Amino acid sequence: MEQLKQKIREEGVILSQQVLSLDSVLNHQIDPQLMMEMGKEFAARYAGNHITKIVTVESSGIPIAFATAYFLNVPMVFARKKKTRVMDEDSLVERVPSFTKGFVTELVISRKMVLPTDHVLIIDDILANGEGLKALHRMIGTIGAPIVGLGVAVEKTFQKGSLAFREMGVRVESLVKINSLADGIIHMD
Amino acid sequence: MEQLKQKIREEGVILSQQVLSLDSVLNHQIDPQLMMEMGKEFAARYAGNHITKIVTVESSGIPIAFATAYFLNVPMVFARKKKTRVMDEDSLVERVPSFTKGFVTELVISRKMVLPTDHVLIIDDILANGEGLKALHRMIGTIGAPIVGLGVAVEKTFQKGSLAFREMGVRVESLVKINSLADGIIHMD
Repeated sequence: MEQLKQKIREEGVILSQQVLSLDSVLNHQIDPQLMMEMGKEFAARYAGNHITKIVTVESSGIPIAFATAYFLNVPMVFARKKKTRVMDEDSLVERVPSFTKGFVTELVISRKMVLPTDHVLIIDDILANGEGLKALHRMIGTIGAPIVGLGVAVEKTFQKGSLAFREMGVRVESLVKINSLADGIIHMD
Repeated sequence: MEQLKQKIREEGVILSQQVLSLDSVLNHQIDPQLMMEMGKEFAARYAGNHITKIVTVESSGIPIAFATAYFLNVPMVFARKKKTRVMDEDSLVERVPSFTKGFVTELVISRKMVLPTDHVLIIDDILANGEGLKALHRMIGTIGAPIVGLGVAVEKTFQKGSLAFREMGVRVESLVKINSLADGIIHMD
């Protein structure tokens, strides 16, 4: 995905050897045309897999998940990060330690939104250590819906999330692989 | 917007005379085709207004804001609800009391994402008391960018947000007006 790679090269800000800020690309501002292209790409890679639902985690995953759901013509569900007062009682909750935020959050998903009969594609913006996506994966497993695979815009191969998923036998598709942030350079595939 | 109205009628759950759960319509699950229609409608209503940026608040506003930004062909910025460790220092912060969540949250937006030269359209899912949107309005005012108007999927006319904005002279466009939740019925315009 050359267009995304170029945007990351131009606008990504290296904060440490582990952390790359993509605020103006994925996490705070987005380019809707590029997001639609990214969604179209995931839809193409997972075409013919009988996906019935796209699941993501709020918030940065929502635009890409939405675009993917649009092209696959299925609903999109976003797990919430805190139990709001109006959420129904029939909800699953998982704890997630977040590296970038420095604290534990709770992920919430309603059993009404993802059914055991669904075929789920999980979409998110960045796969680093993958704690949030692992929690989401556990929750969908608890519901009993088969997970067809995972699609992430950016895979940080030098952190342990993508390897962990592949070792679990989960198909992982990424649009850009970041292999290192050493020496102040974003090394990408 | 008949399609949205019908979905609200079928899937909305009245929790009290003030609170309507729209989890399967806007706040937890979305229909991407319907969202695109909603975005197209906002884009049509605000066409010719020289909008350069769509601004929303995470998370439920993101899909509609994204769709609107797509059709207006401009970037979309979402204000974050908490300062994450990787967000830059040049950020504005506003406190927001939330009725449905029962606690105060902080809204964060970076001065790098919205510039004084931008013409801003604010988009969100629901306008009830409007505390979040008022905070967003104040932040964009602090930046100095002109606000062309506000677009919300659902306006609850029996709560005070929409009146407050109109009294401030802000153009408010809504796709569905909910006038009352009395007697267990969703009264809509």
